[in-house]
Amino acid sequence: MERHFDHDLDELKEQLLRMGSRSEAIVQKAVESLKRRDSALAKEVFEDDRAIDRMEIDIDERCVSLLALRQPMASDLRFITAALKIVNDLERVGDHGVNIAGNALRLNQEPPLKPLVDIPRMADMASSMLHEALDAFVRRDAATARRLVRRDDDVDNLNRQLFRELVSFMIEDPHTITRAMELILVARNLERVADLATNVAEEVVFIAEARIIKHHAEEMASGGEDFGRT
Amino acid sequence: MERHFDHDLDELKEQLLRMGSRSEAIVQKAVESLKRRDSALAKEVFEDDRAIDRMEIDIDERCVSLLALRQPMASDLRFITAALKIVNDLERVGDHGVNIAGNALRLNQEPPLKPLVDIPRMADMASSMLHEALDAFVRRDAATARRLVRRDDDVDNLNRQLFRELVSFMIEDPHTITRAMELILVARNLERVADLATNVAEEVVFIAEARIIKHHAEEMASGGEDFGRT
Repeated sequence: MERHFDHDLDELKEQLLRMGSRSEAIVQKAVESLKRRDSALAKEVFEDDRAIDRMEIDIDERCVSLLALRQPMASDLRFITAALKIVNDLERVGDHGVNIAGNALRLNQEPPLKPLVDIPRMADMASSMLHEALDAFVRRDAATARRLVRRDDDVDNLNRQLFRELVSFMIEDPHTITRAMELILVARNLERVADLATNVAEEVVFIAEARIIKHHAEEMASGGEDFGRT
Repeated sequence: MERHFDHDLDELKEQLLRMGSRSEAIVQKAVESLKRRDSALAKEVFEDDRAIDRMEIDIDERCVSLLALRQPMASDLRFITAALKIVNDLERVGDHGVNIAGNALRLNQEPPLKPLVDIPRMADMASSMLHEALDAFVRRDAATARRLVRRDDDVDNLNRQLFRELVSFMIEDPHTITRAMELILVARNLERVADLATNVAEEVVFIAEARIIKHHAEEMASGGEDFGRT
């Protein structure tokens, strides 16, 4: 049973990392479609999002099965319940990708407002945070996770700076309003992706620090009752 | 054991409903602070959000304990794993309340742009959706949940209508840009609250339709192994 369980857990981690890669990729593709003004690429994002939605359902099913059939305890139990929350976050990353692709489709029909520098930079920051957060999660690496939580401020600052810049565009020339609005919304979606990466990182820290439950569960297990794996 | 478990589950439902009420209330209070131009009220929202964050941690702990100590099966297992996702949604409702309170604090320092009609209406729609979704969840009422999912479109339409109206304000008079932007962001936060209510409703539908796992778990249980409560 233990060996099977380890194998199941490894498969769950693999699945999470695959879903994580898809989530990073969708953010990059959506911003790329904006940068290259490539509406065909933007449309691919909608299909990619459906694939991510299916991955969420598969991982949820695996988590529920693991809970039902293996009855994991302590840190493994916490790992699985955290995974349930994290797939929710990754699914939302997909939704933000879809929002950005929608902004791109509308923006690609109008002349460019300004060269895109900060938005691709925000996309890189957000998707690398996502990558590292997932990696920290499967490795249960709280130190890396803690550093990530602090990096969220950089993305917030970039978002605020871009917001001010775009509002000043609008004030100077009302013709830019609709386009500037779309770019503000793109930046907000990227900022939300960084928030979701931060959520994942916070789960990792929370698991590492949640000694109360772990302690309690171990006590129960050593009390002689059969609680399965501890 | 069964009786204890039912009691635990009832307490979990109570806690979820309490957290739900707080989440509805925070949305209403944030919009109220905007409507009444009451910055002291807006500041209360930040404290309310911290209370909601603490409720999330408490409910998470209860769910993990229930999984560890009671090893529920089938529909109860699914109920608890769904609860883990739903508290995440409710916690985000609190964050949207905070965002709106921030918009209110900035807007209250400037003359009003227009009478607020649609925004309070969106707030009512979003918070009643949240209320009904939570209620459907604890009653495991998939029919109500399915109707709720469709109501999300009304909020989206109102948001789009308001967006167009505010953009036309900006175009006509650039002095309105900052205020109109803030109101657009308020409406987007409310639209996200309705999305989160829809997520909760979708969980309810998903639980009701997830016969595969339930079936599988029941098969395992009837296979003679001790899987606890089925």
